[in-house]
Amino acid sequence: MKNAIGRRRWAIAEGYLPGWSNGPEPELASHETCCILNATDETAHVTLWIYYEDREPVGPYEVEVAARRTKHLRFNELDDPEKIAKDTPYASVIESDVPIVVQHTRLDSRQAENALMTTMAFPA
Amino acid sequence: MKNAIGRRRWAIAEGYLPGWSNGPEPELASHETCCILNATDETAHVTLWIYYEDREPVGPYEVEVAARRTKHLRFNELDDPEKIAKDTPYASVIESDVPIVVQHTRLDSRQAENALMTTMAFPA
Amino acid sequence: MKNAIGRRRWAIAEGYLPGWSNGPEPELASHETCCILNATDETAHVTLWIYYEDREPVGPYEVEVAARRTKHLRFNELDDPEKIAKDTPYASVIESDVPIVVQHTRLDSRQAENALMTTMAFPA
Amino acid sequence: MKNAIGRRRWAIAEGYLPGWSNGPEPELASHETCCILNATDETAHVTLWIYYEDREPVGPYEVEVAARRTKHLRFNELDDPEKIAKDTPYASVIESDVPIVVQHTRLDSRQAENALMTTMAFPA
Repeated sequence: MKNAIGRRRWAIAEGYLPGWSNGPEPELASHETCCILNATDETAHVTLWIYYEDREPVGPYEVEVAARRTKHLRFNELDDPEKIAKDTPYASVIESDVPIVVQHTRLDSRQAENALMTTMAFPA
Repeated sequence: MKNAIGRRRWAIAEGYLPGWSNGPEPELASHETCCILNATDETAHVTLWIYYEDREPVGPYEVEVAARRTKHLRFNELDDPEKIAKDTPYASVIESDVPIVVQHTRLDSRQAENALMTTMAFPA
Repeated sequence: MKNAIGRRRWAIAEGYLPGWSNGPEPELASHETCCILNATDETAHVTLWIYYEDREPVGPYEVEVAARRTKHLRFNELDDPEKIAKDTPYASVIESDVPIVVQHTRLDSRQAENALMTTMAFPA
Repeated sequence: MKNAIGRRRWAIAEGYLPGWSNGPEPELASHETCCILNATDETAHVTLWIYYEDREPVGPYEVEVAARRTKHLRFNELDDPEKIAKDTPYASVIESDVPIVVQHTRLDSRQAENALMTTMAFPA
């Protein structure tokens, strides 16, 4: 196990919470996930800012990821300072006090069958 | 919130607007999106060039993204200097006067159920 | 053919083995793959560590990839020191003694139609 | 339009040509695409090597991409020195004498509805 894998700042330009779902909850509810890996030996204090098309960024959303742990954070569940609106394009910037790795995934189950997409976030 | 996240030039080698759709418009119309995040405090003046397999590149397409905003630009909607033809392979180069982050997504609803794909563009 | 393509350490923040499948086995069984390319002229001794949300990392999982070969390793099949639980978020760190290239893919066939996603791992 | 966007060597660790299809040909035939962008003012002489799990790499496959053009190369159509077998894991290394950008996409239509995935190749 190695420490210091990753970067302290990441960006995701794509963000969109589909407005409806089609499938058993919670596994197949439409959602977007911000997967964070903290492979260091210290707790990661992670801050997210959500950027919109037509208003000022909202944040900070604060999340902790313990040492040697991953956290698969659903954007749908962020609610402080406010929930992210559905069917609204957004982007996000993720910052941490220790190096982390960030990957973005969407499961879209608006139609009868689900669709998936993923990408590493951009190490900014 | 930090400034200067990203790069000034990006490339996307894959581009293809599916020729038909299957699902409620506009959410589930087949489309490709160029998601742009401008986390700086200045307006981004963004220029796109579209590259084809059998003719010279077309552009510049010009787009502005305000300070601290994201823009989820649908390639389908670009029309100046001309529309991008459907069912035609293309690629794109995106340039900006301030650092931005660019991500590429396709929703393909040609069959009854939609399919999704995404990737960060290449920071060129 | 060139040697020394890639890096010695990679990370994948997203990991999740869907709990069920829907389609002919083994091609359409739900699975996640760690695709490894060893383009060097030496055997790659590869070590994987699996990170969880609520307990210490598990590993090392050890895999060899021969010189000038690829290996499409299914996470489902790792079993020493233990199997990866289904329906459990995880992340992974992949290390090698020679440079390799690592890409992550999921095929999800929990619903009637399969969904796919892929990304290059993060070169850590 | 700028020159010199990209790199001269790229790698894709994932490769797999699904053994069957379900949908109108050729748009919805299962396929993998190597999307190449040559934004320079010179012809790109591109060479591909295909790596397998259980035998020596096969190549070179040679392709030209004209100046200021993209080429969406279907792996299915490569046939010199030989076709790539279906249902067989492979990986690829792509080299060019001028900088190019390479992106990998798969459309899988083995089931009734198609699935899509894409990622930038690894700039090696």
